[in-house]
Amino acid sequence: MRRGKLISIEGIDGAGKTTLAGALAAALSERGIDVRLLREPGGVQAAEQIRELVKDPDRVIGARAETLLYAAARAQLIEEAIEPLLSSGTWVLLDRFIDSSLAYQGGGRQLGVDQVREINAFATGGLLPDRTLLLYLDPALARTRSRRRTDPPDRLERERDDFHATIARTYEELASGDPERIRRLDASQDERTLLASALRALEDLA
Amino acid sequence: MRRGKLISIEGIDGAGKTTLAGALAAALSERGIDVRLLREPGGVQAAEQIRELVKDPDRVIGARAETLLYAAARAQLIEEAIEPLLSSGTWVLLDRFIDSSLAYQGGGRQLGVDQVREINAFATGGLLPDRTLLLYLDPALARTRSRRRTDPPDRLERERDDFHATIARTYEELASGDPERIRRLDASQDERTLLASALRALEDLA
Repeated sequence: MRRGKLISIEGIDGAGKTTLAGALAAALSERGIDVRLLREPGGVQAAEQIRELVKDPDRVIGARAETLLYAAARAQLIEEAIEPLLSSGTWVLLDRFIDSSLAYQGGGRQLGVDQVREINAFATGGLLPDRTLLLYLDPALARTRSRRRTDPPDRLERERDDFHATIARTYEELASGDPERIRRLDASQDERTLLASALRALEDLA
Repeated sequence: MRRGKLISIEGIDGAGKTTLAGALAAALSERGIDVRLLREPGGVQAAEQIRELVKDPDRVIGARAETLLYAAARAQLIEEAIEPLLSSGTWVLLDRFIDSSLAYQGGGRQLGVDQVREINAFATGGLLPDRTLLLYLDPALARTRSRRRTDPPDRLERERDDFHATIARTYEELASGDPERIRRLDASQDERTLLASALRALEDLA
């Protein structure tokens, strides 16, 4: 059995990750690939409970606890879902993964990318995506998009604009540091063109 | 303002930590020390929620996620409660702290003490207890005591005997490695004698 591929979709809030993830899962399925879409944090029972806790706007959670909670949810998702799926040959498409922690907690919360990477290396046992699609979009435009949603903003979405600008910058640095794994996609493209770019960025994996 | 002292009480399940913690808090109070007793995991709202999750016998939680959840609860307890209390001169008495993770997850779950220590150094920002009281008791006797309780056993209490023996051994190794901080107390003594030993082990801190 050939091991499945692990693909993560990353970017700031409002960049269009969830829309692309759905379209990409459908497109890969049509091409005969057995693919499973999972979101982070969440995807398995314990991780969904951690998601509720960490997203709750009324909850007091410091930067270090936040980092460790995301890492705990990730460890559980890998053990319970991602590893068994990859081993059985299924591709796994992740709406956010380790780079979100590096950008949000390492960059945005200023804990340092290297320190957060170390915590996550423990959580993942060293597992990295085969490919990461980074949606880049002007942070101001992304904020407008994300404010247009009807749901009330969660604890992280409420942060100030400079927090989100730092995250965007950290994502760019991560992409420069690992251009083979992380492919940047212009998220201001229309949905069809964006999907075509995403599929092209995965072509060599199939 | 003189900074308060941080004291942790450690040992395997059934060693009598909670009983000693209550008696010690009362005895220190009587001596005019402003002291606050906290339990781990828990003590603040987010950490209590993590406690519920990690103790639930019906929940699937792997060793890495478990370690990260305890560390997250610890980080939040320090930031929200322990640091402000110590800064205001209050002594903090902890029913379990970092050594529990080293012994249970590092030793019992076989993740390695050094790796778990690293995760916890991130969680605590390097904070260590001024003194740790390690209650030692024959693991078989401790298991009998802990089975006598009326509450149904939680997820960790259900583990097999060799898991608990490994934890006891890891605690001993931690105590040998840091005899100035960690003081061993014979938990088979009667409660009054044990309390007197505990107070003697703290004498130089006051």
